[in-house]
Amino acid sequence: MPTIKFMPSQKIVEVPKGTSLFEAGKQAGVSVSTPCGCKGICGKCLVKIVSGQVDFENEGLLSQKLLSQGYVPVCKAVVSDSALEVLILSDLSGEKGKFDDSSDDLLLVSSELLPENKDFDFICKSVNLEISAPSYGDGLSDYDRLVSSLQKNLNITNPEIPLDLLQKLPNILRESEKNNTKSNITAVYYNKSAKIVLADIVSESNGEDLNRFGIAVDIGTTTVAIQLVNLENGSIIYSKTAYNEQIKCGLDVISRINYARKPEHLAELKDKITSTINALIIESAKKQDIDPLKIFNIAISANTTMVHLLLGIVPEYIRLDPYTPAVYSVELYTAGSIGLSICPNAPVYIAPSVGSYVGADITAGALCTSLACEDEDICLFIDIGTNGEILLGNNEFLLGCACSAGPAFEGGGITHGMRASNGAIERVEIDESKNIKCFTIGNSAPVGICGSGIISLIAALFRYNIIDAAGKFTNTDSDNYVSTNNSHSSKNPALILTKRGNNSNDISEDITLSESDIDNFLRAKAAIFSAISLMLNNIGLEFADLSRVYVSGGFGRYLNLDDAKTIGLIPPLDHDKFTFLGNSSLMGSYMTVLSQKHRDKITQLAQRITYLDLSTEPKYMDEYMAALFIPHTNSSLFM
Amino acid sequence: MPTIKFMPSQKIVEVPKGTSLFEAGKQAGVSVSTPCGCKGICGKCLVKIVSGQVDFENEGLLSQKLLSQGYVPVCKAVVSDSALEVLILSDLSGEKGKFDDSSDDLLLVSSELLPENKDFDFICKSVNLEISAPSYGDGLSDYDRLVSSLQKNLNITNPEIPLDLLQKLPNILRESEKNNTKSNITAVYYNKSAKIVLADIVSESNGEDLNRFGIAVDIGTTTVAIQLVNLENGSIIYSKTAYNEQIKCGLDVISRINYARKPEHLAELKDKITSTINALIIESAKKQDIDPLKIFNIAISANTTMVHLLLGIVPEYIRLDPYTPAVYSVELYTAGSIGLSICPNAPVYIAPSVGSYVGADITAGALCTSLACEDEDICLFIDIGTNGEILLGNNEFLLGCACSAGPAFEGGGITHGMRASNGAIERVEIDESKNIKCFTIGNSAPVGICGSGIISLIAALFRYNIIDAAGKFTNTDSDNYVSTNNSHSSKNPALILTKRGNNSNDISEDITLSESDIDNFLRAKAAIFSAISLMLNNIGLEFADLSRVYVSGGFGRYLNLDDAKTIGLIPPLDHDKFTFLGNSSLMGSYMTVLSQKHRDKITQLAQRITYLDLSTEPKYMDEYMAALFIPHTNSSLFM
Repeated sequence: MPTIKFMPSQKIVEVPKGTSLFEAGKQAGVSVSTPCGCKGICGKCLVKIVSGQVDFENEGLLSQKLLSQGYVPVCKAVVSDSALEVLILSDLSGEKGKFDDSSDDLLLVSSELLPENKDFDFICKSVNLEISAPSYGDGLSDYDRLVSSLQKNLNITNPEIPLDLLQKLPNILRESEKNNTKSNITAVYYNKSAKIVLADIVSESNGEDLNRFGIAVDIGTTTVAIQLVNLENGSIIYSKTAYNEQIKCGLDVISRINYARKPEHLAELKDKITSTINALIIESAKKQDIDPLKIFNIAISANTTMVHLLLGIVPEYIRLDPYTPAVYSVELYTAGSIGLSICPNAPVYIAPSVGSYVGADITAGALCTSLACEDEDICLFIDIGTNGEILLGNNEFLLGCACSAGPAFEGGGITHGMRASNGAIERVEIDESKNIKCFTIGNSAPVGICGSGIISLIAALFRYNIIDAAGKFTNTDSDNYVSTNNSHSSKNPALILTKRGNNSNDISEDITLSESDIDNFLRAKAAIFSAISLMLNNIGLEFADLSRVYVSGGFGRYLNLDDAKTIGLIPPLDHDKFTFLGNSSLMGSYMTVLSQKHRDKITQLAQRITYLDLSTEPKYMDEYMAALFIPHTNSSLFM
Repeated sequence: MPTIKFMPSQKIVEVPKGTSLFEAGKQAGVSVSTPCGCKGICGKCLVKIVSGQVDFENEGLLSQKLLSQGYVPVCKAVVSDSALEVLILSDLSGEKGKFDDSSDDLLLVSSELLPENKDFDFICKSVNLEISAPSYGDGLSDYDRLVSSLQKNLNITNPEIPLDLLQKLPNILRESEKNNTKSNITAVYYNKSAKIVLADIVSESNGEDLNRFGIAVDIGTTTVAIQLVNLENGSIIYSKTAYNEQIKCGLDVISRINYARKPEHLAELKDKITSTINALIIESAKKQDIDPLKIFNIAISANTTMVHLLLGIVPEYIRLDPYTPAVYSVELYTAGSIGLSICPNAPVYIAPSVGSYVGADITAGALCTSLACEDEDICLFIDIGTNGEILLGNNEFLLGCACSAGPAFEGGGITHGMRASNGAIERVEIDESKNIKCFTIGNSAPVGICGSGIISLIAALFRYNIIDAAGKFTNTDSDNYVSTNNSHSSKNPALILTKRGNNSNDISEDITLSESDIDNFLRAKAAIFSAISLMLNNIGLEFADLSRVYVSGGFGRYLNLDDAKTIGLIPPLDHDKFTFLGNSSLMGSYMTVLSQKHRDKITQLAQRITYLDLSTEPKYMDEYMAALFIPHTNSSLFM
């Protein structure tokens, strides 16, 4: 019977020829999410055939490129060979829904941009060293013997050996000594500006466990996401998100910068972000039974302020004219010096920023777009979050700008707004009788509404004329509305989306959407749309000149393009010009954790970006005011 | 009236022409110790005339070389010029006696070996940088502007900037910004394997205070000594010694190594030595009103085990066959990583060791001898301490060995033994009536007896036949003796040196010397002498082949050569072949704090030394047994 080995879990199962790969996985206890219920239409349950062959009829589902790389949907592939090795690309361990901003979209969207296996280089490399045992009168210290072995094996001079490794060197050498003639140890090292720096040494027996995992991190102002990545095959073993603990010190970047003005507050913000990241690292490592101190590779993307706060650098001058950050390209500091809980000597990679408000999250995101290729098609990259950042360009020019959208897309400033997590209303349908039906993440009882839910809701309300172009309710004379006061104590009617249960034990509130919620949301979408218009306008382009529009953001799992166009958030272009990237910053971080080539790519990208400051553009306020309507004052734009 | 400015205190006084420099100093409140009472015979009160002229008749007191360098004895020089700048070489701030192992001997002994002013290079250099203020849209971060200014000023690429400096960079730049056009800051940097590493940045106004002081440290197993050195003129501003706090964990190197076998004990030993050194640094800095965090230069010499313990490295394998230390040549680790309380990014220089028991203290000591020159005369360097270390060689060969003398020379294992500090009997005279007169350091009431006192005492007792060649009292039938028990409970008569006072409030003991004290001392001297004999013997040399013998050690201020020869501690050679160096390890450390050239010299010296292991020499035990007598079994050697 054919034997199937599932990686990275190494679970093995024997099944008869003709069994579907999905069934084989089930028998082996390996779970792969199959969003369309094994109908073979969503293409989201891809696995990679590492060795052996399967039977599979493509029927146009996958690109030729994906096929040639060995990807198949687990639900449609059938066991045909006697031995098969199958790589599960994202094993979410049953936590689907909660962590969906991770890897599901990774392969379908941008496989040609992802590092290929030949690009993987671990960044921190390991080398097995055979070191002669000390002999009486040889005049060589342990340090001398290590250095000379490194020089011989790596053909280098003067490796740098951190003090803590010198401290453990004598015992490591003697533990791994055999027959009093030689020691076998493994050294982990990396390159730093033409020098070799040692990150760890271990006695040989532990050597094989080293160096196989990396951590990709995206630090958002609101949400922090990490992935534990297998560096040998690129698979995402575990992913997890958490709120940035800094939220307690201010909801947006500007309030954090203000908070950081006292040195003890700056230290507090640094502590909070390192502790958020460390909790995620430790949890990931624990779930996979990995020692976090044996993780040597971490790549981080974040906006410019988050990078400053992570490094404990005064962020004040980011927000003061002339808006000069302390640093754009951060050298490789060690995890220990930054306070991250992996191997303390491991080098921490932080993607480069290009402006006060066009940060490493955007350069990392751009890695997921054709901007990272030598492509002459003009494309637009929109990252929608608390700050909206936009890149526009091709292989000849590249402009970047940022606008302050506020937290509405992540649920902030909305009465029942919330992050895209379990229980969040992510989609809304309204029927002919104007009944509202809410769909939540994880099909849980509704807790609140996330960004994609708000977009869906406002679009539906506008379509059914429940709100007008200014975002006001057309008729509030029904039981579906309650009257609330907003902060200015003026009239602020609110639509009830879901009623509190009748059970008296139910302490949940009604979930509502008020006019002032809609107003906050429209300000956010206007900030984004007016920035896009102005940018195109500035270099004499029109929407039609765009070959491709990439949209990313933490506002939900999937953006409904019709809804987004209905409300005037994105340019009115054909569907096939859009690509939804999910969390592109995390995706870029994933690529840089795997390959130096992609680190070099991002550096080149960052150097090409010209930063455009909207605050100095006289037309920006006009554009913004015009975009406060649904879809726009100039509704012909959206015809 | 002539104006006299005393450096480094910058005190100024006006005195009439013809006033002695000593008198002028007194009026200015500057104290210079004048051991011979201004008789102009000891040559120990040297000062350096930096500018201007004095009247002074040499009469053969100083060498032509010292004269040409501007040195004069303060007691004999007379003010002749209208303006004079005088450098006080060692201002012990009235603590004379207690700290005499510092600099008194420095200049007379080995001035030709000391770094000259032209060799001074501060090691950590400073550079004033003019950095353009940020301008809107220049696309340069603070880091970018710092790096480009460093590159321009120092003609380098890729300087390494520690994270804590990046953290303070934004504020430093803005504090020192003038007229919104540029910032003036001072950067302190050093070279590390062909790279420039930044140690600090300060706004210009503080820049001038930077970088002027260094710390020279000698870590002895028993005593730690430091000097605060003015790096601009080489003067020793302050010196201080303290017991090594590790003493609580074991008296000698071997017991410390044993103690360190538990990881928490190793950490304790590291803590104790760093806290000993830090207390000395902080005290020195405070006395001179210097911020210790603005000290960037520290040079350390110590035996191999002390280096391991300072760095927190397992010392176990130093004492186990094949006696392999973890490290001989330590790279430049930062003060922060080692735990020393100077600027945390300052590089810590540790002199190289060459063997388990021939450490950095010996290579540093050799810097004070003609072994550091291209000299063909064969010379012997003996460092007498808990371990005795011996170097023998010339420009063609260089041998090193070590023997375990035990702590007797530093007062250990002797009933009333003590370190050479206030109240220690340092010299003894016996008159024709066999009355014993004791002379103490600081002319204080006697508290105990130090190494030089024991040598003086045993020599006098032997000369007056109060003890015999085996170190036994010839006649104990007098009130001058008490009967004590030694550890083996056998008879152990002891000679009373000083009686307790009659005053009943006097709680001091009689100070005595017992036969078992003498025995311990003879074992120590036999270990040293037999090592010297064997070493010469090994390469077919005789005492007469030695052109020069250097003696150093912490056993007292001055070694009386006649006494040392009487007891058979040192080879029986003419007085003029001997040079007494005091604490040569500290002296070597002083040289390496001042000049890279001397760091290079010590590296070359270390590479030339061949380590000889006495424990494998079959003749060593015979030589040792023969040397247990006063002066030696073969007394013809000392005729």
